[in-house]
Order: sequence, then structure tokens, then C-alpha cells
Amino acid sequence: MFEFELVAVDPLTGARAGHFYTPHGIIPTPVFAPVGTQATVKALRPRDLLEIGASLILSNTYHLYLRPGDDVVRDLGGLHEFMSWPGPLLTDSGGFQVFSLGETRKIDADGVIFKSHLDGSTHRFTPEKSIGIQENLGADIIMAFDECPPSDDYAYVKESLVRTHDWARRCRDSKRRDDQALFGIIQGGIFADLREESANFMQQLDFPGYAIGGLSVGEGKADMYATLDILEPIMPFDKPRYLMGVGAAEDLVNGVLRGVDIFDCVLPTRLARHGSAMIHGGRLNLTNAKFLKDPEPVELTCSCYTCSNFSRGYLRHLLKANEILGHILLTTHNVHFLIELMGKMRKAIIRGNLRDFAETFLKEYPPVEPLSEN
Amino acid sequence: MFEFELVAVDPLTGARAGHFYTPHGIIPTPVFAPVGTQATVKALRPRDLLEIGASLILSNTYHLYLRPGDDVVRDLGGLHEFMSWPGPLLTDSGGFQVFSLGETRKIDADGVIFKSHLDGSTHRFTPEKSIGIQENLGADIIMAFDECPPSDDYAYVKESLVRTHDWARRCRDSKRRDDQALFGIIQGGIFADLREESANFMQQLDFPGYAIGGLSVGEGKADMYATLDILEPIMPFDKPRYLMGVGAAEDLVNGVLRGVDIFDCVLPTRLARHGSAMIHGGRLNLTNAKFLKDPEPVELTCSCYTCSNFSRGYLRHLLKANEILGHILLTTHNVHFLIELMGKMRKAIIRGNLRDFAETFLKEYPPVEPLSEN
Repeated sequence: MFEFELVAVDPLTGARAGHFYTPHGIIPTPVFAPVGTQATVKALRPRDLLEIGASLILSNTYHLYLRPGDDVVRDLGGLHEFMSWPGPLLTDSGGFQVFSLGETRKIDADGVIFKSHLDGSTHRFTPEKSIGIQENLGADIIMAFDECPPSDDYAYVKESLVRTHDWARRCRDSKRRDDQALFGIIQGGIFADLREESANFMQQLDFPGYAIGGLSVGEGKADMYATLDILEPIMPFDKPRYLMGVGAAEDLVNGVLRGVDIFDCVLPTRLARHGSAMIHGGRLNLTNAKFLKDPEPVELTCSCYTCSNFSRGYLRHLLKANEILGHILLTTHNVHFLIELMGKMRKAIIRGNLRDFAETFLKEYPPVEPLSEN
Repeated sequence: MFEFELVAVDPLTGARAGHFYTPHGIIPTPVFAPVGTQATVKALRPRDLLEIGASLILSNTYHLYLRPGDDVVRDLGGLHEFMSWPGPLLTDSGGFQVFSLGETRKIDADGVIFKSHLDGSTHRFTPEKSIGIQENLGADIIMAFDECPPSDDYAYVKESLVRTHDWARRCRDSKRRDDQALFGIIQGGIFADLREESANFMQQLDFPGYAIGGLSVGEGKADMYATLDILEPIMPFDKPRYLMGVGAAEDLVNGVLRGVDIFDCVLPTRLARHGSAMIHGGRLNLTNAKFLKDPEPVELTCSCYTCSNFSRGYLRHLLKANEILGHILLTTHNVHFLIELMGKMRKAIIRGNLRDFAETFLKEYPPVEPLSEN
């Protein structure tokens, strides 16, 4: 259980292809996990996700704790049974959401007090509480409770790291279920020394997998890629590496090139709800008037259900008319786009031509700004 | 083309089982047509509708004329191609929607002037205009432009009938496409003499099918059933009979018992959006707190995707969290419920046991109030 098997490692880059074994099936890596915040990937059914090729779904501890309540999910058989998803699941710790609440939360050494965004009621998360909730939910992969600080404030990130490390140990110590893998989260902002310190600390706690937190929170792409470059050689080679909250196509490619195995992000589902399709080289805003009578699919080369059956003109109509089917069809396309991209990269790693694939793919995207001075 | 073949007629009731041949396939009757107002059955994909067993979809001329415009639909290949529905389609005439606009519309002998509910712009529908739009849309079955008057105002219904009959003739005369069947609509409110007059008039125009309009507009169920009883013996036996806007399960059964072949209604999709599931004997409001931890499906005996995979507790969660999947799953169930009901009735007619089936089915529904004095 929770064995991580490396199938191929690209000699030209840090990229790896592997298998992560979980109680609900094998996750082929590198993998992109669509996000089902409230125990549903917005606008898709489990069978649609299986058809698209999703092998890992993320759900949010903060949201499920508040509604319907982790006890409800537990009593209805756990998250897999509750949402009828037969494959591997991952829950976050709730930390990221709680810290995002800003003014309404208060941190101390023991945990965080926060107010519900639903009804304003007051709640407290501690490392032990987060693990308890995640054990009620029952995902295959659960996450240590951490603080996600602003990435470029050295003093704050350094101070926060003490808490995050202490909390990681407490999470490990309070965990009781054997059928869940607890991943540690490496913080440290965009600072090489702090990232190294955090990676070393987490490795001592011997987790079955390690996440990279605190990126994709407003720092530039160059900073993100540079931080991944720092971490690549110091993260455990034989354990899965999970870059949290990253889902832009070019970031997935750059992450895989730097040895990342797991990604998750709300981006494909969120863009879909805003009428935006992910395509090679960028995005297509389908609400644009120029698509009124466009008979072409979103992407001619795409084999998803949406592109196989519907025109841009029809999608534009659905979006303008605020029809649910517009969300369904664009979400299908966007999630398919990212999952197909991961599959192509996995094949390229195994065949040994990832660098060529990545260069061709990234050529269509705007160049990344050079790294700023820090 | 547009042949109506009767497979079986129940000797104990007026019920019939048949086939209606259209350019896009055969419609087995009796049939329930889900409504795709804006060229999409809300929250369902065409493949979902096929899987559920839908064989006829209705779309609305008024809505498509305003958005995206019938010229857009025509230029994108017509309604079948536009919405990627391979099977038979029906469009209404726009009359019902226009008359529903109330204060903002003005009727004269030639047609109706009305204001768009979208932007307040002024438009004019005439019988010729309605047929022209429906020819641009290209459904298999199109409807004559009629007035749908209040069912219980004798003087008004009688006066309105003159217009509706004149307009039906003008629709027939202006129709150009041979691959569309134009149905006449019988009006006359709840009045036997007016219904008889209208049925006789329409029959003289020799339409390939006849609709019963002006019911399910606020009159009681007893009045509706009594009107169907009046029409059953006087409507052409060898042509399909279409009861417009009726979709409550008990009304479908009562309609089939009275010789109706085709039904349509927004009820199953609209109820779904309000969290209500259609079940034997009535409805289930799934937002109710009592379903919080209910592990049962909506209906234990139901074989739809929703009931095969999800609990009432999960559905309640989706509805409370305002998740699109809640709409998708409830719509799937409700449309499946009605289409399965039609299939069961069709089989019962062919096997000769419809009366037994109907009695058992209707036993669970509240009795119908006796007919009021008119």
C-alpha cells in the first residue's frame, strides 16, 4: 500500500513517470487531479471523470467540514461512497482555505480560529482536528495541516515555518488510520535556504509523499519555476512529489520537467464557468461575439465529447443564455485537455522524448519573465 | 414520411401504441418529449437523453428567435446540428410564450406585437413569420401559430377561435418545406361545443397531426380530463394526437387512457432545478433536513444513473451547496421517470393490460376533484 514505483526517469530533465498505489487503485504519474471542492467536480459526474481519464480527485476539508459536516460524510460511508467516486481521493488539510479567510482568522501556536464563510459561526482547526476530519472523510491521501504564508516575506515565512514544522509532526503523531497516506508539505516561500530547511525537516518525519506548498499564490512564474529548480535535487527521489494548486498547462509542463508527480487546481473548472476554454497556446473566451456563427469545435484536434459534437457557435449560445450545459461541455473539455496533456507527458517520459514534447508545447505559450531580484 | 402507424389500440380504453415516422427517426408512441427551451434540455447532454430513452425533444421558437436568432441556427446547420441531437425534434409556434407575456403584447387579426423579455425590443409574430422561423430552425414537427386563451371564458375563447382557425389556414398555406410536419392545434377551452367546432375545422385542413392546446393552463385536472374525454371520439383516429404542456405523471396516464399519443412539459426539468424528485405517488423535496444522512437512493426501484449511484443524503448536500451536479442528477432521474412510465404504458397497451397498469399506478396519487359546474 502507498508504494511509489518509478517506471521511467527522463535523463535529460528531472521528469519521472510512475505508479502510486492506493487502496482505491493505482495513480499513474505524472497526474493532474481535478478539484471537487464540495465532494463534486463542478458540473461533472463521476462517470464523466472516469471517461475523461481522471485517476485522482481532490476535495476540500474546510468545505466538507462546514457542509454537510465530516460526520455526515462518515455516516454515509465516507467520501468515496458519498460522492460515488471509485478511484483514489485526496483531501487537503483545510489550512489553505482557513488562511485565505484573511481578517476573520486568528493564528496561534496551537492552531487557527476562524469564522465560517457560510454563517459566520466560529470554529477552531488544529493539526489534530484536521487529521480527525480527514479520517472521517476517508480519502486515500491526506495532507498535513500547514500555514501557507505570503511567498516573498522572508521574516514571516521563516517564523511561519516553525509552526508548519511543529504541526506536521503533530499531524503525523495523531494519525490513526492505516489506509490513508499522510503527505508532509514543504513551505519556505521563494527562498532557497528556507525551502531546503523545510525539505530536510519533512524528510526526517518520513512521510510517504511530499507536497510543495506556498506556490502559485501570486509569485511570478519565473519565481515558481526557480523554486522548483531548488527543490528538485533535494526532495526524496523515491517518494511522490505534489505541487499544490497549480493547473495552468504551461505550469504543468514546467513542473513535470522539474520532477513533479502530482498537481491539482480549480483552474479548468473555474475557467469553464467563466466561458473560457483551455487550448494549445492559451485560452479561448467563447462568449466573444466573433464565435456567433462559428461552426468549428473548440479545438479541431481535440477528441473530447464537447469537441466531437458541438460548435463554438453553440457553446457561445449556451454561455450567453446561461445554460448549465455550457458549463458541463466546457468543463469536460478543459479537464480533458489537462488530463490528456499529462498522459502525453507520461508517454514522452517513458519514450525518452519529453524535452522535445515540452519544447514544442511551450513554444506556443508566452515566454516567462526573467526571475526578479529577491 | 410522417406516416403514423398504430401498433395496438386498447379495446378497454382509448389508448393507442404507435410509430410516428420522421426524417430523423421513428417516435414510438405514446411518448413524452422533454423540453429544451433554448436548444438544450437543461442540465442534460444529448447522449444522456439518448441513454434515458428520449425519442423526441421540444424546443421553443420564441426563445430561439430572440437568442441566438433563427438565422444563426439555420446558418449553423439547423437545430439538429446546432444542438447535436440526432433524433426527432419539435418546435412550438411561439404563440404560447408570446401570449404569456401579458401586458407587453398586443393582438390583432393579423398577428401579435410583443416586447422581448431579454431587452425590451419590439417584435411581431404572424402565422407566416412563425412558420418562417420554424423552417429556419428545421424541426421535424412544427406547430401552427395559435392563441392560447383563458380556458374558462366562453365569450373570449369563442372569439379567439376565429383567429386561431384563420391563422392555422395561413400557416398551412405559407409552409414550404416538405421535410417538416405541420400540426394543427385544437383550442376551445373547457367547452364541448367549441372543442368540437375546432376539431372539425382543423380536420378539414388535413394536418398530419393534431395538438390539443389550451389545457394545463390553470383549469383543474377534472376539467382537463373531461375535455380529453370530449375530444377522444372526435379527433382523427389515424393521426397522432399531441397534448401540449402536460407532464405530471398522473396526467400522462390519464391522457394515454384518453387516446393521447404525444406529451411535452418543462415539469421534470423545472422540478429538478427546485430540488424536487418525481416518484411513484408524488414528489420528494430533497432539500428537506430529514434526508441529511439518508443512505437510500431517490427510489429503490429506479434504474436511472442517479438512483444507481447516489444517496438522498448526497443529493441533499449538492442541492444545499447549490452544485450543478444536483441539477444534473435530479433532472436525469425525473426525465427517466417519465420516459420509463411512457415505455411501460406502451408495453401495457400492446399486451392489453393498460387499465390494470393505470389503476395500480394512479392508486398512489390523490383522487381528482369532481368536475366543477361550468
